[in-house]
Amino acid sequence: MPLHLPKGFRFAAVHCGLKSDPYQQDLSLVVSDVPATAAGVFTPNLVCGAPVQVNRSRLPGEGFRAVVANSRCANACTGEQGIRDAEEMGALASQIVGGKPEKGLVMSTGVIGTMLPMDNIRRGIDKAAGRLVASEAGFLDAARGIMTTDTVEKYASTTLRLSSGETISLAGFCKGAAMIAPKLATMLACVLTDAKLDPDAAQRLVRDAVEDSFNCISVEGHTSTSDTVLLLANGAAAPTPLSGNDLAKFADALRKLCVELAMKIPADGEGATHLITIDVEGCKDRESARTIARKVAEDALVKTAIFGADPNWGRIVSAAGTAGVSFDPRKASFKLNGFELFRNGSPTPFDKKEVGDSIRNNRDTHFLLSFGEGAASIRFWTTDLTTEYVRLNSDYTT
Amino acid sequence: MPLHLPKGFRFAAVHCGLKSDPYQQDLSLVVSDVPATAAGVFTPNLVCGAPVQVNRSRLPGEGFRAVVANSRCANACTGEQGIRDAEEMGALASQIVGGKPEKGLVMSTGVIGTMLPMDNIRRGIDKAAGRLVASEAGFLDAARGIMTTDTVEKYASTTLRLSSGETISLAGFCKGAAMIAPKLATMLACVLTDAKLDPDAAQRLVRDAVEDSFNCISVEGHTSTSDTVLLLANGAAAPTPLSGNDLAKFADALRKLCVELAMKIPADGEGATHLITIDVEGCKDRESARTIARKVAEDALVKTAIFGADPNWGRIVSAAGTAGVSFDPRKASFKLNGFELFRNGSPTPFDKKEVGDSIRNNRDTHFLLSFGEGAASIRFWTTDLTTEYVRLNSDYTT
Repeated sequence: MPLHLPKGFRFAAVHCGLKSDPYQQDLSLVVSDVPATAAGVFTPNLVCGAPVQVNRSRLPGEGFRAVVANSRCANACTGEQGIRDAEEMGALASQIVGGKPEKGLVMSTGVIGTMLPMDNIRRGIDKAAGRLVASEAGFLDAARGIMTTDTVEKYASTTLRLSSGETISLAGFCKGAAMIAPKLATMLACVLTDAKLDPDAAQRLVRDAVEDSFNCISVEGHTSTSDTVLLLANGAAAPTPLSGNDLAKFADALRKLCVELAMKIPADGEGATHLITIDVEGCKDRESARTIARKVAEDALVKTAIFGADPNWGRIVSAAGTAGVSFDPRKASFKLNGFELFRNGSPTPFDKKEVGDSIRNNRDTHFLLSFGEGAASIRFWTTDLTTEYVRLNSDYTT
Repeated sequence: MPLHLPKGFRFAAVHCGLKSDPYQQDLSLVVSDVPATAAGVFTPNLVCGAPVQVNRSRLPGEGFRAVVANSRCANACTGEQGIRDAEEMGALASQIVGGKPEKGLVMSTGVIGTMLPMDNIRRGIDKAAGRLVASEAGFLDAARGIMTTDTVEKYASTTLRLSSGETISLAGFCKGAAMIAPKLATMLACVLTDAKLDPDAAQRLVRDAVEDSFNCISVEGHTSTSDTVLLLANGAAAPTPLSGNDLAKFADALRKLCVELAMKIPADGEGATHLITIDVEGCKDRESARTIARKVAEDALVKTAIFGADPNWGRIVSAAGTAGVSFDPRKASFKLNGFELFRNGSPTPFDKKEVGDSIRNNRDTHFLLSFGEGAASIRFWTTDLTTEYVRLNSDYTT
């Protein structure tokens, strides 16, 4: 799969002493050679990190020149000094390409409650500035620099031909694999495009895309203090702000790209042995479908059943029943990996070994919950809950 | 601790072939020699068992004569036949002491989606009828007959002197230790008293008591299809319905008894190595406090941290921040086992080894979250999340 790198961005990642392994990158830098429109979506957690507070106050807006991200320290619960540190990080990054101090955006992930080691950060940004490249290797480095317990770098890209004949690209990278002590990990995503967008359009597009993607995944239901999705649009390939049909096509491409990125997070969930896709259909509205899907996705009994390759439809239907969404159980049905286990409120006879084997022998598991209450649906992704997940999250000395 | 057995009740438990071990009781029977007022509180799960539907339609009310309970089969998702089976169970139990068919109450726990083996149930009730005794041994047998993955029988009792000089007793038993495949387990509780109550008072009292007890516990946040709390008041020790100061004292005793019973459930949680008591204070109202406490109690990252004896206050404060309850993080504080780890939005220096040891060396763990937003508080109980919990709930072949 070729990587479609948007024009006008350069990338670098370095080790600046945050991770103990000197061969692991822990600081990522993205600069835009021309001012970019930027928009973002952030954690709803009331306890939110300094970078979230700084970015939120600046977005959406224009003239942005850089995104700098670090792992190992979330810069959360760090008071006024934390805000000043986040602002300094952003300023140092933006000034590399001659931008104003407030035109650098910041993402931090890692332990909460400790101050950023600013000497390391300053040295790291300086070192990264000397290595910026507009290449696939640089982009992949940047994707790697924000990894924590992720086992693979997570990125996606796509390309789109505008009605004017110009071709624009979208590329994004993200990180997230739940949390592991003593770090408080986080979902971070950065999407770049060389199309141009008005700030309001950028904000609307990224918010809509997140609804269908990053808001449709859950590993263990803990919304971190630092979750961030950024979109930078620098117009380097097509300087006119998108509108009309081009804007609609771009919105669709952005949504698909975000879905592709988001799915990679539960696919790489800590200790996970299954990626579970939950389709909920026949609901009164989309939020009802999302609420049911999330309840099923976050249910420990559902997740341990899948780990055990147990087609325990009772736990799944029962979890749906506790979501707080009204439905008539006599119209509810459930399929697992295409096998019908429950129809119109009653169990369906099935071969338990055959269905169990279909779970055991595949990393992908599919749930289809149907309610017959309306036309709204949603697709949601989660992981199973494994002994390895518990081990990773309780025994941080290993 | 002496067992205060209310007068006028008799008890039995038998093995009727539901559990595979012939030495394990699987059917419990309680009869009241005189008609009793009864009230109940049931699962809010939309997918609810036949016994819940049958009991709910009859309560609160008077003239009740029996409670019959079985394990291994929840009689849930069993359609019209399930309702008829639950009704027959109740009728057989009530008729033992000459009661009307509809004056027997029913509780079932176990796998969902399979029909009750009615031949076994009928034989079991018949056998139990011949063994009814008004003794401590009989009461303990009844408590044991509803155990599933519980490792100990769970019961409590108390006594109260009325203003008239009569002494009345309350005794209750319950079961619940989360769920284990392939069963869908459940929280069941049965509280008996030889005081007399009006049906409406009984219903109000049991509902209030549940708010402070069974609604303040969570093992993994899955509300089963069959959760049931029943209260039977037969007046055998004091035939006049309680009122005034006696009623208030009784309400208090019932609340304390229910708290004592409820705490036993997370204390015996599947695979648990810690009982976590969560005090939330300084909230605008009690429901806000409960919502925050429940969010913290059900957070996989909080629960794995305690399993790992990790004083990871960041996960706890962050979980509170995602509860959907508005608060100012700058006024939030947190203590763990009496050690202050977080005050007014900022971390407090502490000896990590000392606090970790206080978790590691005690089965009881205490959280105190303070918000400075108001005067409401709540006390909530949960367990840690362990590798053993995951093993129990995924590997049902062992």
